[in-house]
Amino acid sequence: MSILRNIMMTLAYDGTNYHGFQKQNGTALKTVQQELETALSILAQEEITVYGSGRTDAGVHAEGQVINFHTSSRIPAERLPLAVNSLLPRDIVAIDARDAAEDFHARYSAKRKTYRYTIYNAPYFSPFWRYYAYHVPGNLAAEKMTKAAEKFIGVHDFHAFCAKDTAVTDFTRTIFSCRAEKQGPLLVLRVKGDGFLYNMVRIMAGTLLEVGQNKREPDSIDYLLASGERKQAGMTLPPQGLCLYAVEYGDHKAQVVDRPDRPDSI
Amino acid sequence: MSILRNIMMTLAYDGTNYHGFQKQNGTALKTVQQELETALSILAQEEITVYGSGRTDAGVHAEGQVINFHTSSRIPAERLPLAVNSLLPRDIVAIDARDAAEDFHARYSAKRKTYRYTIYNAPYFSPFWRYYAYHVPGNLAAEKMTKAAEKFIGVHDFHAFCAKDTAVTDFTRTIFSCRAEKQGPLLVLRVKGDGFLYNMVRIMAGTLLEVGQNKREPDSIDYLLASGERKQAGMTLPPQGLCLYAVEYGDHKAQVVDRPDRPDSI
Repeated sequence: MSILRNIMMTLAYDGTNYHGFQKQNGTALKTVQQELETALSILAQEEITVYGSGRTDAGVHAEGQVINFHTSSRIPAERLPLAVNSLLPRDIVAIDARDAAEDFHARYSAKRKTYRYTIYNAPYFSPFWRYYAYHVPGNLAAEKMTKAAEKFIGVHDFHAFCAKDTAVTDFTRTIFSCRAEKQGPLLVLRVKGDGFLYNMVRIMAGTLLEVGQNKREPDSIDYLLASGERKQAGMTLPPQGLCLYAVEYGDHKAQVVDRPDRPDSI
Repeated sequence: MSILRNIMMTLAYDGTNYHGFQKQNGTALKTVQQELETALSILAQEEITVYGSGRTDAGVHAEGQVINFHTSSRIPAERLPLAVNSLLPRDIVAIDARDAAEDFHARYSAKRKTYRYTIYNAPYFSPFWRYYAYHVPGNLAAEKMTKAAEKFIGVHDFHAFCAKDTAVTDFTRTIFSCRAEKQGPLLVLRVKGDGFLYNMVRIMAGTLLEVGQNKREPDSIDYLLASGERKQAGMTLPPQGLCLYAVEYGDHKAQVVDRPDRPDSI
């Protein structure tokens, strides 16, 4: 009898050449999920369905996207990254795999996510950042941005920081940390929360950018969180600056079950 | 009467999609020099010939390649980067331009060059470094590499660190500084010298890598510098880890002449 395992896998990917994470059924569009399912199905010699911690849009990157999938394959978890990487394109890389508890689900078990948004702030854009940052040539008041970013911390209604086309009705989210820091020519926003609305980080970044450009004051964040008026917030910055940095699962990361003790069938 | 100006321009480029810096006459191969000459000729409305500080091979990058070219265009130097960038592909970016002395030549006036070689040292390769570093999965003895790198400093015969196919007869070069440093998952070699032989930095990096892998001792660098035996040195590491970081010109950078005081014709 084959044992059905539940594998938790962490991935880094360069989203430049993909139409986002999620499979686009009935289209020929390249997606990260489709590449993963194809590679894992070949590896496991059975049809694999991948569940991601969440979607990432076209052009958005990941340093630590988490997925899970069920398989009867007996390949030891620690060998899975190397094995699946040999079947994946070079812009998608598995960096960790482990056997997870039966009820672990990459999306529903997620407790915290960290996103990073990167602005390249110099007179001319660097060719090395063209797919990984948003270019802002003029001077930015970095200290004001740092101060404004802290205002997002806490439990707030983020209606003003949500794209209009959403089916969501509860706009309350908890932000655990939110830092905007200057690092050489980069202005990096790191935000950790219990969940994010559609385009939320990109609108937060666009609003903080206006603070840095002295188009608005840090206090206007308080107003936006109170008013919920999307049109009063900043623009949605483009996808290439965004990266899903990490997903945390609380206890679940510890709930690693022993893998079957039968010898590896590879 | 038109005044012939000599423009010094600094460029960053991502070499991934180019067959090196130097124009390949009679071929359709894309090169950085060809892209520059095409863009500058359109901008200046005259045929422009570009002189680079040196070639970079296919896949090699630049943060600070320097070129010069002669032109009768009256576009002020400080406006040239933005103007030419609008005509260049996004992977080649002019970051500085200035009027230089009549006798300035990007290659022959160069006093010092700095190259950087980047190794990505982690179990799995990062998708974000696949075009900008060489992946080494195993553990590296970084302190030994740091110690070995210092042995290159000084005036030495670098015959052992030169590709065989070279017309050069004098293999003596001066290395002013040479550091190998661990920075997170990166192992970065930075080397500044008065000139470099063909593939010299890539062979130095390959030899230091063997030190890091405990395949040779730091003292073997002394032996190689004395013996000049290429086959005793390490492998030539691949091009994508290499970057021409900066070119220095001593007095010439200060010898900036005033640009014509007639109003800009753009």
